[in-house]
Amino acid sequence: MATLKDVAKETGLTVSTVSRVLNNRGYISSNTREKVYDAMKRLNYQPNELARSLSKQTTNTIGVIVPHIDHPYFARLLSSLETAAYQNGYKLLLFNSRERDEKEDEYMEMCKASRVAGIILCSGSVETERFRDLNVPLVTIERFLEYGTSAVECDNRQGGRLAAQHLLECGCTNVIYLSGENAVSMPADDRALGFMELCGQEGLHCLDPGKEIDARLYASLDYHAYIEKILTEFPEIDGIFASSDVIAAQVIQICSKRGIKIPEQIRLVGFDDSSIASLTTPGITTIRQPVREMAEMAVRMLIRAERKEIVPNRTTLPVTLIRRETT
Amino acid sequence: MATLKDVAKETGLTVSTVSRVLNNRGYISSNTREKVYDAMKRLNYQPNELARSLSKQTTNTIGVIVPHIDHPYFARLLSSLETAAYQNGYKLLLFNSRERDEKEDEYMEMCKASRVAGIILCSGSVETERFRDLNVPLVTIERFLEYGTSAVECDNRQGGRLAAQHLLECGCTNVIYLSGENAVSMPADDRALGFMELCGQEGLHCLDPGKEIDARLYASLDYHAYIEKILTEFPEIDGIFASSDVIAAQVIQICSKRGIKIPEQIRLVGFDDSSIASLTTPGITTIRQPVREMAEMAVRMLIRAERKEIVPNRTTLPVTLIRRETT
Repeated sequence: MATLKDVAKETGLTVSTVSRVLNNRGYISSNTREKVYDAMKRLNYQPNELARSLSKQTTNTIGVIVPHIDHPYFARLLSSLETAAYQNGYKLLLFNSRERDEKEDEYMEMCKASRVAGIILCSGSVETERFRDLNVPLVTIERFLEYGTSAVECDNRQGGRLAAQHLLECGCTNVIYLSGENAVSMPADDRALGFMELCGQEGLHCLDPGKEIDARLYASLDYHAYIEKILTEFPEIDGIFASSDVIAAQVIQICSKRGIKIPEQIRLVGFDDSSIASLTTPGITTIRQPVREMAEMAVRMLIRAERKEIVPNRTTLPVTLIRRETT
Repeated sequence: MATLKDVAKETGLTVSTVSRVLNNRGYISSNTREKVYDAMKRLNYQPNELARSLSKQTTNTIGVIVPHIDHPYFARLLSSLETAAYQNGYKLLLFNSRERDEKEDEYMEMCKASRVAGIILCSGSVETERFRDLNVPLVTIERFLEYGTSAVECDNRQGGRLAAQHLLECGCTNVIYLSGENAVSMPADDRALGFMELCGQEGLHCLDPGKEIDARLYASLDYHAYIEKILTEFPEIDGIFASSDVIAAQVIQICSKRGIKIPEQIRLVGFDDSSIASLTTPGITTIRQPVREMAEMAVRMLIRAERKEIVPNRTTLPVTLIRRETT
């Protein structure tokens, strides 16, 4: 069987350069990279990462746990995490919790058994107690855990303020915040806080949808019945701030069915700027989370924590208003 | 450090039952599962999968390569693959090729080095030559490779026929097929084949959009300019079959901007039944790929191929028409 030395000899490169290509570390020109892969193929060289990982007792692998891969926000986040991991020479082990505590728990154990370098937990509603006594770095995105290593969030409060400010400037007088979050306390709750804060400051009337939101709503992602109920209860609404673009898309559907014109009769602001926001008709004005930057930050935090460096326990990135056709 | 025996003793279960829980093999009640995980936590037991994998020279890991995680079709497919893998005791290593040959090539090498049980390649446009001489099972979804182990597809031709039949029944007289596929020959090309076949049989006039489709379209997923051009060139169009729901969503946007009413003036059928199809206004009538079943089939084929069983080299699953509001 061919060795690393054989590959170096075949390519005329040093062993350390070949090793850097294999480990995807440092700058390597695409020319060199190709040369090494070509030689590996010719010689049928097979690096054994398992053996290397066993001696290091860790792998260049990050466990990622998301609640819904099929939700456009998490799909975009996952895509950005994959890119950030790749650029740093890491691979992703993917787990979809579907909001089930016992599944998430099992995943944590699978991650630990696979000797991942660390875990990135995206949102989700699992009990926080389960994350005590982890022996690997745990970075959360849009979720704060007392026992986590580092939390990366967008500025949800600023997002709520931007949405209220924008609806105010559009001439709205009766606004409401529609959220699908569940019982667990989440950074996303600050969207409501910022929204109501600015409404209060500016004297904009903010309607109260009540507290009877069902956790199953978030699990199924089907908010139609809830939106119908709110629009019937509050016919005076002329501005809606939805806590996600998926909810905003469903508001557009219900309003169209009822003959309510957007943006003429109701102005609508979403949250996330996921792919759906630019694919609906009309396109959704939304608060953009800097997903790419949040993903890069999370991967960087994880790698630094793995190296036992001190990392911030909480990092907040700014959001921006993206104006489309619903306002 | 605690051993497997200690966990068995603590729980009162046999070593083989505990081992089955850890390996996620065979039927285990959730009660037993919980008991084992609780005991593992109390004893701080850490199974070392790396060591086990090294002796087996394989891992319970499947490498999945997709071209766009952020595309709603691939997000749904990935979600289904994760579920199917989990149910069979496998984990997913995730790779996003973004349609770049050299990245896909590197991923193949990373998969091999990680001693994956097999690779599932979803669609994508990478050169087929690169998949020669793989030493692990390679299962493709919506992609056929001469050197692949097994290909799982939906019945694209039937899908094309169903779309044409439906547009015909809706009273359309001038229909067109809009596709974003690129130069590489793909199973999805059969959608056009089935569509034109039925149009020919039934005497439905099928317009020819020409062959100047740019590969960059598929990479960027932005078809607006292309759709504008087609609608200007063929004002007589009254029925559109779009090769994906993402394209169909953009047709709705352009038609709305031009004041063309859907479904009154143009009837529209999409393909995939991804999450976007039920989130647009109007909701998209579409050809549903049985994504869950395709994912389960792909994982099953991979596991059987890993065990050196004979597997079909090509499996086609039926599609169905899902009627919503664009027709």
